[in-house]
Amino acid sequence: MIKQLQQQVEKAIADINWVQEPTGLYQPIDYVLSLGGKRIRPVLTLLACKLFSDDEKQALSTALAVEVFHNFTLLHDDVMDRADTRRGKPTVHKKWNDNTAILSGDAMLIKAYQLLQQAPADKLPVLLDLFSKTAIEVCEGQQYDVDFENDLAVQLPQYIEMIRLKTAVLLAAALKMGAIIGGASLQDANALYDYGINLGLAFQLRDDYLDSFGDPAVFGKKIGGDICCNKKTFLMITALQTASEEQRKELLQWIGCTDTTCHEQKIKAVLKIYQDLQIDTRCEEAIRAYFEKSVGSLKNVQLAENKKDILVKFANDLMGRNK
Amino acid sequence: MIKQLQQQVEKAIADINWVQEPTGLYQPIDYVLSLGGKRIRPVLTLLACKLFSDDEKQALSTALAVEVFHNFTLLHDDVMDRADTRRGKPTVHKKWNDNTAILSGDAMLIKAYQLLQQAPADKLPVLLDLFSKTAIEVCEGQQYDVDFENDLAVQLPQYIEMIRLKTAVLLAAALKMGAIIGGASLQDANALYDYGINLGLAFQLRDDYLDSFGDPAVFGKKIGGDICCNKKTFLMITALQTASEEQRKELLQWIGCTDTTCHEQKIKAVLKIYQDLQIDTRCEEAIRAYFEKSVGSLKNVQLAENKKDILVKFANDLMGRNK
Repeated sequence: MIKQLQQQVEKAIADINWVQEPTGLYQPIDYVLSLGGKRIRPVLTLLACKLFSDDEKQALSTALAVEVFHNFTLLHDDVMDRADTRRGKPTVHKKWNDNTAILSGDAMLIKAYQLLQQAPADKLPVLLDLFSKTAIEVCEGQQYDVDFENDLAVQLPQYIEMIRLKTAVLLAAALKMGAIIGGASLQDANALYDYGINLGLAFQLRDDYLDSFGDPAVFGKKIGGDICCNKKTFLMITALQTASEEQRKELLQWIGCTDTTCHEQKIKAVLKIYQDLQIDTRCEEAIRAYFEKSVGSLKNVQLAENKKDILVKFANDLMGRNK
Repeated sequence: MIKQLQQQVEKAIADINWVQEPTGLYQPIDYVLSLGGKRIRPVLTLLACKLFSDDEKQALSTALAVEVFHNFTLLHDDVMDRADTRRGKPTVHKKWNDNTAILSGDAMLIKAYQLLQQAPADKLPVLLDLFSKTAIEVCEGQQYDVDFENDLAVQLPQYIEMIRLKTAVLLAAALKMGAIIGGASLQDANALYDYGINLGLAFQLRDDYLDSFGDPAVFGKKIGGDICCNKKTFLMITALQTASEEQRKELLQWIGCTDTTCHEQKIKAVLKIYQDLQIDTRCEEAIRAYFEKSVGSLKNVQLAENKKDILVKFANDLMGRNK
């Protein structure tokens, strides 16, 4: 069923004529939306709607609003992070320039609202409230991420709050909006929101984990990217907290070294410390805990078990457990 | 009355606690909103509402939405134009950095929608439609402005369309939204929109005019800024169109010269050609025509003449005619 919803999203995106005059503004939007991706968020909106109503199509414009918003954040984040590639293709600011990425991104954010405005009229105010609240939280998450870059004192709760804002709330809102459109009770919609938050946290921690301990062939990115750029991930924060004095000194030394020629050495040394401190196990435990919490949120939802199973399977798929 | 509405806007902006955590995101928003300015757009929203209803306060959140949106565009435009100062103070990307200007700008756009969501519920869908349509048009206008920078073939109708999108539609929408909230008929609201479009065009052409022919002491900026950076303004486009072969050659030569050391010479030479071609008179005529058209839109509006007079006086004030 997920695959079918994914195709529905792809078709809906392809059916919209994104490019109009001035093409300098709209071509980059078409480009970034056609780069693909798993369309996780819009699929969740459609899925949540379908679980409570037979007609998931009424949530289609809202699903697209979420996807366009998500791609807007990628576009602006890539400018801020000076990222060269996204999904194996040059980023918009690389293919065009910074100004294009800024302005086309702005237009995407507005387009997201225009799509949202097509939602069922009686649901519009509550959807708008949730969407804007979520959107501003994503900005806050991005700001914390930037703030943490040069902050060695970041603690785990702060980090979890950052990834909650930057990653989890949009997954959660995508689900809740779909549930609302599908006619779910507020209680059920909120339970799906909680499912999304904890799934989002588990998902982001898994991303942290794979960046250090993943199989490069499966992960698709080079191992150690986070280590190189001193990202304060779950792994690094936990390592700094649990390290012996000597290990801590060594970690700080490597963090201080930003010379690209020592990247290989730095990755190797930090990974060694992670392993000595069993950071991988700790991270796996945290992922498991958030995953369990996520699936646990479904317990009291007023849905047939076979419908809940779809959400459980989705969560397992997202965590790479059914491959 | 305008002054009183202006104070109402200032007070409403001051009453909102813009700064919360993370301060890195919100401090720049507070900064840019406290730089002042004439608050033309939110004043127009309140004024339009007050003309049709006694209670302009119901339009206050919408007025603020318009002002926050306007300041968002300034923030991102300043990054794109590499502008160092705004209202005599350093721009956000100068005081902080580009990433801050991008992200805080994004948050402002979302905040604008959050303010708009506080509008009277029965009016919300139509206000949202107009607001988003206007917002995307402003982006289109900015894109055309960028496109025209290196385009010598820009014609006057294209230029007018560009400034309509970049400047006029927001003034027009500010008025129309206020009128809608005040309970105006669609016909009257549209007449105010037309008043705003033509007033916006006249206002922008006056800005072009003053950049070349203004009194530097009154204008507040150095004369010739547009000439230096080869802006395709009404003046330059008309000059290129009406120039003799020899004058055209000279103009193109100066456009080709981007060396800052010859700025003074360039301004002097281009101004001389403008004067020889009586571009100042042509521009004054165009300003007068749009101004007359603007005020003419009020003819069929269902309002008492003394109320229409307020809009006529506002237009005259905006054009600097009552000083």
